[in-house]
Amino acid sequence: MLTLYSFGPGANSLKPLLALYEKGLEFTPRFVDPTRFEHHEEWFKKINPRGQVPALDHDGHIITESTVICEYLEDAFPEAPRLRPVDPVKIAEMRVWTKWVDEYFCWCVSTIGWERMIGPMARALSDEEFEAKVARIPVPEQRTKWRTARTGFPKEVLDEEMRKIGVSVNRLETRLAESPWLAGENFSLADVCNFAIANGMQNGFSDIVNREATPHLVAWIEKINDRPACKAMFANSKSEFADRGQKVTA
Amino acid sequence: MLTLYSFGPGANSLKPLLALYEKGLEFTPRFVDPTRFEHHEEWFKKINPRGQVPALDHDGHIITESTVICEYLEDAFPEAPRLRPVDPVKIAEMRVWTKWVDEYFCWCVSTIGWERMIGPMARALSDEEFEAKVARIPVPEQRTKWRTARTGFPKEVLDEEMRKIGVSVNRLETRLAESPWLAGENFSLADVCNFAIANGMQNGFSDIVNREATPHLVAWIEKINDRPACKAMFANSKSEFADRGQKVTA
Repeated sequence: MLTLYSFGPGANSLKPLLALYEKGLEFTPRFVDPTRFEHHEEWFKKINPRGQVPALDHDGHIITESTVICEYLEDAFPEAPRLRPVDPVKIAEMRVWTKWVDEYFCWCVSTIGWERMIGPMARALSDEEFEAKVARIPVPEQRTKWRTARTGFPKEVLDEEMRKIGVSVNRLETRLAESPWLAGENFSLADVCNFAIANGMQNGFSDIVNREATPHLVAWIEKINDRPACKAMFANSKSEFADRGQKVTA
Repeated sequence: MLTLYSFGPGANSLKPLLALYEKGLEFTPRFVDPTRFEHHEEWFKKINPRGQVPALDHDGHIITESTVICEYLEDAFPEAPRLRPVDPVKIAEMRVWTKWVDEYFCWCVSTIGWERMIGPMARALSDEEFEAKVARIPVPEQRTKWRTARTGFPKEVLDEEMRKIGVSVNRLETRLAESPWLAGENFSLADVCNFAIANGMQNGFSDIVNREATPHLVAWIEKINDRPACKAMFANSKSEFADRGQKVTA
């Protein structure tokens, strides 16, 4: 039995969610509500002591870290549609992309997202409420990030992150101008993991991600949104918010 | 034919080097000299445009990123001794460790290493020489890091990195007190990749990594140094410096 704890189809949570749909695996989605800081509650820290989503429960084995979960699904369900190439050279190419999103691309986009969304959320709390929430966060770096988000990230940090977003967008556009998918001829975890961060940038970062400046990146985002698995993921995730813990057959 | 471009048996270069020896694969080690900034020379940037070691050439296919190379060796040479578990749950456990070293542990140790070694190296150059070297570095973040190393990292950065080193050392010690190897009962890439960063800390960070404070971590470092593959790697790497490009049979 598979249960995926996630924030729903966005950012790192999207990675294993889309992978599960693409692979057609039956699973129970369990939405963890970030606006209620549910991932820092005791019940969830028993599942992942780091208080982070996504986390996969497979027959009682807990797998954490979004990219590790995606590769786990490849290892554990080799008979389901593959999202990892067969050729070792191609697998390595895929992993350079999944590693890059985890070490570079996701962080610059994340900081801007925190500034725009977590900042206001944190400022809406009283000092007392905020400190009580922060005290429950197990990872020290996350506590620091919450505090920084509440006061607002320094301008030079935001500028540097925007520069890195520009570098990232350019890297994706360049690659997608020469290849249908990031790791070559076939859709793979390279696309799943980068789409998790890139999807929505045509709205939130429309000055740099748009049909004129980045035609191949926009086309790739639309092409993934058009995949049946992706459509099913977004459609089911709406009902998931209303009706939590319901079993979904992808 | 396998050729490994590396700085020799330390830091990220050690990972694929030790993996090759552990797997008993025949390869040509090609030492790239960091003190001569050889990794930023045009001939090497034709191999890895990012100007970074290690890089593996396997029959003309170039594989980059130390951890990706290690996993590649598992995929490409499944008949050689395994450094990756068979059970998907154990593989995921291994990957949480290899991911952690790449995203957390290696960075804090690296900054201190840069402060201690790259800083003096950069200051030994005239402004003109230094700028000429920096101009050849393809990755912008690396150029910034060289400049910061030359002036010296700010004290608050060094303090924060030392805090993270403390967290890292504690995490390793805690794990190794309960398990012979990082990912469980068997030596794996989790050990290879963390050893690459941890080995030598008993000398360079002897105030926190020592027989009293971290007995299990020190024992694990010694245990890996005692492995025949590790001994052969260090022994051969000495001659490699003198006699570059010689074929080695592990």
